[in-house]
Amino acid sequence: MTDKQINPDWVAVDAGAHGLRAWAMRGGRAVAQVQSGFDADDLTPAGLRPALDQLTAGWQTGAGTPVVICGPLEGGDAALRAVPCTPLGETLSRAAGAPSPLFPVPGLRQKSPADVMQGEETRIAGFMALNPGWDGVICLTGPHSKWAEVSAGEVVSFQSFMTGELVDLLGKHSTLRPALGTSAIDMADFTEAVSDALSRPERLAARLLTIRSGNLLRPQADGTGLAQLNGLLIGAELAAARAYWLGQNLALIGAPEQTRLYAAALEAQGAPATVADAARMALAGLTAAYRLANT
Amino acid sequence: MTDKQINPDWVAVDAGAHGLRAWAMRGGRAVAQVQSGFDADDLTPAGLRPALDQLTAGWQTGAGTPVVICGPLEGGDAALRAVPCTPLGETLSRAAGAPSPLFPVPGLRQKSPADVMQGEETRIAGFMALNPGWDGVICLTGPHSKWAEVSAGEVVSFQSFMTGELVDLLGKHSTLRPALGTSAIDMADFTEAVSDALSRPERLAARLLTIRSGNLLRPQADGTGLAQLNGLLIGAELAAARAYWLGQNLALIGAPEQTRLYAAALEAQGAPATVADAARMALAGLTAAYRLANT
Repeated sequence: MTDKQINPDWVAVDAGAHGLRAWAMRGGRAVAQVQSGFDADDLTPAGLRPALDQLTAGWQTGAGTPVVICGPLEGGDAALRAVPCTPLGETLSRAAGAPSPLFPVPGLRQKSPADVMQGEETRIAGFMALNPGWDGVICLTGPHSKWAEVSAGEVVSFQSFMTGELVDLLGKHSTLRPALGTSAIDMADFTEAVSDALSRPERLAARLLTIRSGNLLRPQADGTGLAQLNGLLIGAELAAARAYWLGQNLALIGAPEQTRLYAAALEAQGAPATVADAARMALAGLTAAYRLANT
Repeated sequence: MTDKQINPDWVAVDAGAHGLRAWAMRGGRAVAQVQSGFDADDLTPAGLRPALDQLTAGWQTGAGTPVVICGPLEGGDAALRAVPCTPLGETLSRAAGAPSPLFPVPGLRQKSPADVMQGEETRIAGFMALNPGWDGVICLTGPHSKWAEVSAGEVVSFQSFMTGELVDLLGKHSTLRPALGTSAIDMADFTEAVSDALSRPERLAARLLTIRSGNLLRPQADGTGLAQLNGLLIGAELAAARAYWLGQNLALIGAPEQTRLYAAALEAQGAPATVADAARMALAGLTAAYRLANT
């Protein structure tokens, strides 16, 4: 089918660090998908419209086509819902300021420890829709990974970690960069670093530097530095999130390149996890959200 | 005295993250000082010469004026001396490739845990020259802070932490930036964050994010975010370096804006430290090194 034959009755949009991903929906079925990079800082209802129009220009959508969107939409902070609560709530409201029917999925907030999620609640809802009755802990990987305890259809509590952003910052801007190499991550070096960080998590800032000094004194294999960087930071996260994963029913939702690292790290600690793709879970969650919308 | 009357018989140079700092020396006395920003990556013997000539252009130096320099001079890795050892060694050798008499102070290396210092050994030597018979632990602040155990005139062991670089990276490039404010650090918020990190150091990557999420949910005073960022990271360093400072005779060497934070953090843990200025210690160390040079 060519683009001009794509005539969605609604559009599902997942906005986040990965950019914008949009699906042309016919009822509960996606008939087409497009995506683009997008600066998450521009995610105002006003800034979103032109970017979305451009992205879906090939589809036959009108000003009246409903759009359901999840992610950190600016100005949506007031609408954050407090946990414990269901990931999507009872109904989905139309954004007040938007010229066309835009339905942002509200994020979740937690008072203590202070925390917010915007977008992950929809992936959790998607996972719950595809796995009815599932109870356990979901780790959503990303720049700010989130561990969420799910019980009886509600998100009970959650905790964010800036692990992904730290890996990215240290890999791109720090003095460690020359020691990181260009090869794929060596998985044996990775799990060794995870285990090292798990046993002595407080030594992180010192241990990170040994990636560089170890390499200065005795050059290492090309895949070792990046493996150690990821392993030390993910290991430190596992140390702090131990109460979330130890002896729990576990699921990982994220991009494959990240979930495979978390899965290997957890597996090495005797904690296997079900792995689900972030985009697929977002689509399932947006579909569930659309059913709640007052269109 | 005008510049043209400055006629040093040798030049002392401290190269590091702060740039280049040079002193015109008459025997053991500094008669003038100049400094400039300088990319530490260009610290090859060949790249150093033009930068140094430009910096000291106003002084009456010749091709034969000895230069004693400390810092991470590239190509000097082979000369690293293994701890335990005195900070400066017995003699100071002239660099082989340099056209004029250049005397780089060799750095120190430690096999396990793998670590190197280049420049700090000279500040330690300066502190020891000014405080004869001093035994204890010296913390040298900077992008990569170093804790060094000093006993009977030798550096016994040391450990580096990338705390300063992490504060800088997170302050400039991370999603925390909007929550950091522009005011001076609130010292009460700082010591509270230090104590928080010391009691639960493994929660660092989660706690850092609460600087942002706490601010999103309830806007904080302008000096709070930066105080928390510094407090959490310095607190995590203190947790990992506990064996270095607990019950020890302590000295801090660094730039005043950093040593005041470390001093406050240690003071709050009942561990007061003598504070010394990095540039002054470098000058004293370079002077001690000059006496060992085969000029």
